[in-house]
Amino acid sequence: MAQLEQLRDLVDAGGFLPAAELAQRSAGIWRADHLEAWALVRPRSTEEVARVLAWCNEHGVGVVAQGGLTGLVHGADASPEQLILSLERMRAIEAIDPRQRTATMQAGVTLQALEEAVDEEGLLFPLDLGARGTATLGGNAATNAGGNRVIRYGMMRDMVLGLEAVLADGTVVSSMNHLIKNNTGYDLKQLFIGSEGTLGVITRLVLRLREKPATRSMALVAVDEFDKVVALLKHMDHGLGGSLSAFEALWQDFYWLVTSPPAKGRPPVAQDYPYYVLLESQGAERELDEARFQHALEGAFEAGLIADAAVAQSEGDCQAFWALRDDVEQTMHGGAAVIFDVSLPVSAMEAYTQGLPGALQAAIGEHRLFIFGHLGDGNLHVIVQVAPEDHERLRPKVEQAVYEPLEAVGGSVSAEHGIGLEKKPWLALSRSPAELALMRRLKETLDPRGILNPGKIL
Amino acid sequence: MAQLEQLRDLVDAGGFLPAAELAQRSAGIWRADHLEAWALVRPRSTEEVARVLAWCNEHGVGVVAQGGLTGLVHGADASPEQLILSLERMRAIEAIDPRQRTATMQAGVTLQALEEAVDEEGLLFPLDLGARGTATLGGNAATNAGGNRVIRYGMMRDMVLGLEAVLADGTVVSSMNHLIKNNTGYDLKQLFIGSEGTLGVITRLVLRLREKPATRSMALVAVDEFDKVVALLKHMDHGLGGSLSAFEALWQDFYWLVTSPPAKGRPPVAQDYPYYVLLESQGAERELDEARFQHALEGAFEAGLIADAAVAQSEGDCQAFWALRDDVEQTMHGGAAVIFDVSLPVSAMEAYTQGLPGALQAAIGEHRLFIFGHLGDGNLHVIVQVAPEDHERLRPKVEQAVYEPLEAVGGSVSAEHGIGLEKKPWLALSRSPAELALMRRLKETLDPRGILNPGKIL
Repeated sequence: MAQLEQLRDLVDAGGFLPAAELAQRSAGIWRADHLEAWALVRPRSTEEVARVLAWCNEHGVGVVAQGGLTGLVHGADASPEQLILSLERMRAIEAIDPRQRTATMQAGVTLQALEEAVDEEGLLFPLDLGARGTATLGGNAATNAGGNRVIRYGMMRDMVLGLEAVLADGTVVSSMNHLIKNNTGYDLKQLFIGSEGTLGVITRLVLRLREKPATRSMALVAVDEFDKVVALLKHMDHGLGGSLSAFEALWQDFYWLVTSPPAKGRPPVAQDYPYYVLLESQGAERELDEARFQHALEGAFEAGLIADAAVAQSEGDCQAFWALRDDVEQTMHGGAAVIFDVSLPVSAMEAYTQGLPGALQAAIGEHRLFIFGHLGDGNLHVIVQVAPEDHERLRPKVEQAVYEPLEAVGGSVSAEHGIGLEKKPWLALSRSPAELALMRRLKETLDPRGILNPGKIL
Repeated sequence: MAQLEQLRDLVDAGGFLPAAELAQRSAGIWRADHLEAWALVRPRSTEEVARVLAWCNEHGVGVVAQGGLTGLVHGADASPEQLILSLERMRAIEAIDPRQRTATMQAGVTLQALEEAVDEEGLLFPLDLGARGTATLGGNAATNAGGNRVIRYGMMRDMVLGLEAVLADGTVVSSMNHLIKNNTGYDLKQLFIGSEGTLGVITRLVLRLREKPATRSMALVAVDEFDKVVALLKHMDHGLGGSLSAFEALWQDFYWLVTSPPAKGRPPVAQDYPYYVLLESQGAERELDEARFQHALEGAFEAGLIADAAVAQSEGDCQAFWALRDDVEQTMHGGAAVIFDVSLPVSAMEAYTQGLPGALQAAIGEHRLFIFGHLGDGNLHVIVQVAPEDHERLRPKVEQAVYEPLEAVGGSVSAEHGIGLEKKPWLALSRSPAELALMRRLKETLDPRGILNPGKIL
């Protein structure tokens, strides 16, 4: 208790919540359980974060940094003896510079708050994901978030120009670079991006903004062979000359699911094709952009790459197309869903996805399988639905069936969700012993007492 | 001598050159001196590199990895007691995958060799720099090379999907990832990219390729105020919807220099404006792309951003425009040039460049000053020409005048060239003590005996 008193003194009034109060807080937007921890602190500044970490390092107390709790891999779970460090009161957007096209902020700002603030300046922060209202930018950076427009703008890593992080011992490393190009020594921010809070706590960020696209063109197309999906990606990417902003593939079972009752969506094209692709191009001049999009689509038809297509005629159509793709909730109806986020070379994708039903059947018997994802980036979401009562029992077998074939083709067990606790058993499938040893060496160097997000990733 | 014999046995026949033979080898394409070192090894494989490094680590011998020797900051200089490890015999392009759009190769492959190989597949490796015929991809990665099209495609860091590196102790860390998205633990390749051979030796690479643009549109425009240059960047970036591929600014003195005898170039627009900008857009459909480029230019005229313009009517015109921008050699005539590669926020750029002549006059008296660069990325090349006989004496004062004002505006003493030996004295101007301490901690962790490119950066 004396220790808790010491901790309470490190933050301002209202910055400390004892364990008993955490039972009222959800463990995350996808979760049914509540938070559990030794206590929760919610600093207002980098300096407070530094004091807390220095104290925890001295006393050997594990610290779990939390943002919006929208992660999917138990990457921010705390144990009863660990301290939660929530960034929820570090929500200041400090500056938006429309000429330099940068935004500077504290790490607890939500993605949506930033999106709205930069929109007013005619600018775009291009990270785009469903949890935008809750997910924080610090969390997006700590997990190297991906989303729907990676094909055009890259992942979060590509949007971070600078950051400030606090190391385990309380040292503040401020690398608040605003420049696109800066080759002055090691690019330290890379250490913290994507390391899931295990090497330092990100407290502030400088993010790169883009000019806001003025128009978008979309189509939902049906394709009758997988090779044509790959050829279509190359064709559209080439033909749109830099403006292709999404290439989302939907396998037939998923398309059927989100275009049939009880789902609200209806099929823009017939439901009997093996593959569907949502195409989006963001541009600047409606007339020219639509001509180019139309021309690229016509070329795809002539080349036999597309079997059928629905072209969006309005912004409402665009939103309806995206609503189909985003209606992942349908996979939760009538069973328990095991959700995967894998990545693999396109040349291996057809054999992989065609092999899954048989492998799952052999491993667990009856199931439903849905596949969709950011095919333009090689990233597929695989969802396996099983009976709720079998979920716990079958989950390891489902994981084995989905993950094991990835090793031979150089695939990844996590394209964008990260490792957390959930995928730790499978990490060695995507990374070699030498890589894992080097990761451990980095961890020991930056966090020798192992207080930062203990047990995650490694 | 016994040690040299041991070393010779670690590589195949022809893989070892004694010190005496190095006098015939140039120290680099921009240099008048020759190589100097204890010896030079040129392995053929990662395994040989690993054997050499393990041996050097055991015996405390410093190792300087060398690629094409096109660097500008003495980043690959060796001392008489150090070993040069040249990648010159590791030139295999192992695979080009046109579907996955990746290329896999050994680190000694030249940029131009890769460009030509992928061009045959209708693909583009978008790094673009003048030394392409000599610079190696390993060197490009080790220095995080930039170049002319960063605004569209990013720097080398953004093009590397995977790499293999050998650590100081000979451990091979193979991270030959082919995937755009792979969030499985720490992104280890970032440690080696841009660290100038001080944390490991890059031996193989997986690079991301792009669809080859089919067309390009270019203009050289004159602008009468700096604020309009910045507004023009935003205007063109917005109006071209993702296809802007270069935005190169030329200050008047540089423009005058490269468009007047003895230079071969002639002025496409009059020489009496303060700023000129080379605009390039890469697209896919000539008719539509030219209409868009023309329309964006017209909008800039109507908004008063452009005072005059010459629009390229042919590929020959495009090449002639680039030839003006690239004729940096003119700055070497009639004096000795001190070349800078700085980066700073655009909001600070006008005051900075306007302050330079006075600061230089006060510091060194008579001089000539030329400014141009990748303004779209905030990166300027500043060239100060002094009398050859004063070069050594004045250089530190010139550096002080150019670098010191950067600190207050968050500028960088090296946007793309790196630190090497040349900029070490100025590194602390762009990086804080906490950043430098963390860099040193990384260096000590990965190279505890300090054998890798000793004395560079830190």
